[in-house]
Amino acid sequence: MPIIESIPNVSEGRRADVIAALADAVRRTPGARLLDHSADASHNRSVFTLAGDAAGVEAAILALVEVAAGAIDLRQHQGAHPRLGAVDVVPFVPIEGVTMADCVELAKRVGAAIASRFAIPVYLYEEASARAHRKNLEDIRRGEFEGLAARMASDGWTPDYGPSTPHPSAGATVVGARMPLIAYNINLATDRVDVAKRIAAAVRHSSGGLRFVKAMGLLLDDRQVAQVSMNLTNYEKTPVFRVFEMVKREAERYGVSILESEIVGLVPAAALTRSAEFYLQIEQFSDDQVLENRLRKEMA
Amino acid sequence: MPIIESIPNVSEGRRADVIAALADAVRRTPGARLLDHSADASHNRSVFTLAGDAAGVEAAILALVEVAAGAIDLRQHQGAHPRLGAVDVVPFVPIEGVTMADCVELAKRVGAAIASRFAIPVYLYEEASARAHRKNLEDIRRGEFEGLAARMASDGWTPDYGPSTPHPSAGATVVGARMPLIAYNINLATDRVDVAKRIAAAVRHSSGGLRFVKAMGLLLDDRQVAQVSMNLTNYEKTPVFRVFEMVKREAERYGVSILESEIVGLVPAAALTRSAEFYLQIEQFSDDQVLENRLRKEMA
Repeated sequence: MPIIESIPNVSEGRRADVIAALADAVRRTPGARLLDHSADASHNRSVFTLAGDAAGVEAAILALVEVAAGAIDLRQHQGAHPRLGAVDVVPFVPIEGVTMADCVELAKRVGAAIASRFAIPVYLYEEASARAHRKNLEDIRRGEFEGLAARMASDGWTPDYGPSTPHPSAGATVVGARMPLIAYNINLATDRVDVAKRIAAAVRHSSGGLRFVKAMGLLLDDRQVAQVSMNLTNYEKTPVFRVFEMVKREAERYGVSILESEIVGLVPAAALTRSAEFYLQIEQFSDDQVLENRLRKEMA
Repeated sequence: MPIIESIPNVSEGRRADVIAALADAVRRTPGARLLDHSADASHNRSVFTLAGDAAGVEAAILALVEVAAGAIDLRQHQGAHPRLGAVDVVPFVPIEGVTMADCVELAKRVGAAIASRFAIPVYLYEEASARAHRKNLEDIRRGEFEGLAARMASDGWTPDYGPSTPHPSAGATVVGARMPLIAYNINLATDRVDVAKRIAAAVRHSSGGLRFVKAMGLLLDDRQVAQVSMNLTNYEKTPVFRVFEMVKREAERYGVSILESEIVGLVPAAALTRSAEFYLQIEQFSDDQVLENRLRKEMA
C-alpha cells in the first residue's frame, strides 16, 4: 500500500475545542491516520501529521479545511508565526510506494478541490510549483494575510486555483509537495557560538552553501555547547553525510572538533542507508537488500 | 506480527522432483512463506529461506523434515559440502518483534519434535546450545554422516533430543538459533592476495581478531582485485563499521587503500543504521525515529 504523509499547518493554536474538532476531522476519515498533532499558543498555530494513501489523505485534508474555514477568522487572528490562511500550508510528502510526481499530482488535485468547494484561493509551492518566484513558502507568505489582497492584485500573484481575491475569513492556502525534512543538529566541542554561526553560514544555501540546507548557529545555554542547527530539505540531493563532512572540515579551521550530532524527530531510512554506504564505501547496493524491506515485500 | 526467519539446509541438490517436493512442503504450510530456495548440484545440497511467525515456521520445518526423511538416504549421498543429516541444519533467526530467547525456545521445541516424530537425533547449536564444544556448527559436523555413529558413542556427544544412534538413512539434524549473517566483502586497491590474506587473519576471530568475524583473503581473477571476504555472524556485537575500520587500518600498513565494499544478499536495516550513527556521531538515536518504522507502527 502506498503511503503519503501530509503535515497541514492550521492558524489556530489556542481554542482547544477547535483544535480537537480539526483532529477529529482527520481521525474520522477512512484511509487516513492522524499520527501526531501539536498546538502552539504563542504562534497561535497547530501542526497535524497524517498519513495514508492518496484518496485517504485527500479526503482528510478536505475535511480539515471544512472545519478550519468554518471556525477560524483570520481577521481576528493574532500570533507570532507568519500565515496567509486558516489552513495555511499543506505539504504532501512521498514516503513509500509513491513518487514525488504522484504527490505533485495530488497537491494539484487537492488545491483545485479546496478552491472549488470553499472558494479559497490556492497557491502551489515547492515541487508542485512551476514558477521560480512561487516555489519558496517564505516568498509566497511575505506580507501575510494582512497584505494578501494587495499582493493578489499585483503582477505574478494570480493564484493557481480559485478566486483572485482572498477569502474574507480564510485567506489563502498554500499547497505543495516536498521531500521529508530532516532536522539535524551538530554540536561542537566548544562554547564559541561565533564558530557555529560561521559554519552555519558556510554550509547553508542562502549564503552560498549546499542547495538543500538551512542552518543557523546558536548556543545551548544549559550545556554551554555551540550548535549548528539545520534543516535538510532534500536528503537525496544533499545527503546527510556530505553536510556532516562539510561542518567537520569547517570546524577544523577553528581547531574545533565535533562533539556529537542529533536527529530531531523522524528520519527516512534511506537517509541513514546512504550515509552507511558512503562511509563503508559500499558499491552496487540496492534497498531491496535490506532484510526487512525484502521480507515486507515478500510477505505482503 | 512477529517474524522469524529459518534457513534449512537439506542434503539434496540434484533430484529436481525431491527439491520441488521440499519447496512445496513449505509453500503449503499456513503461516510460513518460502522466500527463496537454491540447489547446488556439486554440493548436492539445497538451501531454503522461509519466514513467518513461530507456529508457521515450526510447522513448515516439520513438513520439510517429513519429505526429506522419506526421500533422502545419506548412505547413498555424495557431495562436496560436509553434512550430518538429510535435513542437515536448521537455524532460526529473530527478525522483527521477537527476541533471540524466543528463537532459542523455538529451536528446542522444533528439535524435540523432530526427534519424537521422526526418530532423528538432534543437536542444538549456536545460541540454543549451552555447551561450549557444541555451539559451533563446524565442530558438531566434524566427521560427517560417515563418522556419526562413532561420534555419537563417544564422550560428550549424546544428542540433545532423540536416539543416541544415527537415524539409518537421515543421520542427525542440527537445530539452533543465531543472528542474521551478513556476507560482507572488502575489495582492496591492489592485486596482492597476500595482503588480503594477512588482513583476513588479523580481523577474524579464529586467529585472534574480532569475535563475530569469519574471513579469508582471495583474488578476484577477472578484475585482478584482492578481496577480504567475510561473514559477520553478530552485527550487534561486532558491528560492520568496526570491521571496515580495522580492515582499512591494517591495509594502510601495506600502503593499500580500500577500493570498495559489498554486501552480498541481505542485510538487517539496523546494521546500516548503526554504521550511520557511528560515522555521523549521532547520539541518543532510537530506531523509532526511522520514519518508516514509525509509520508502520502507527498504521498497523
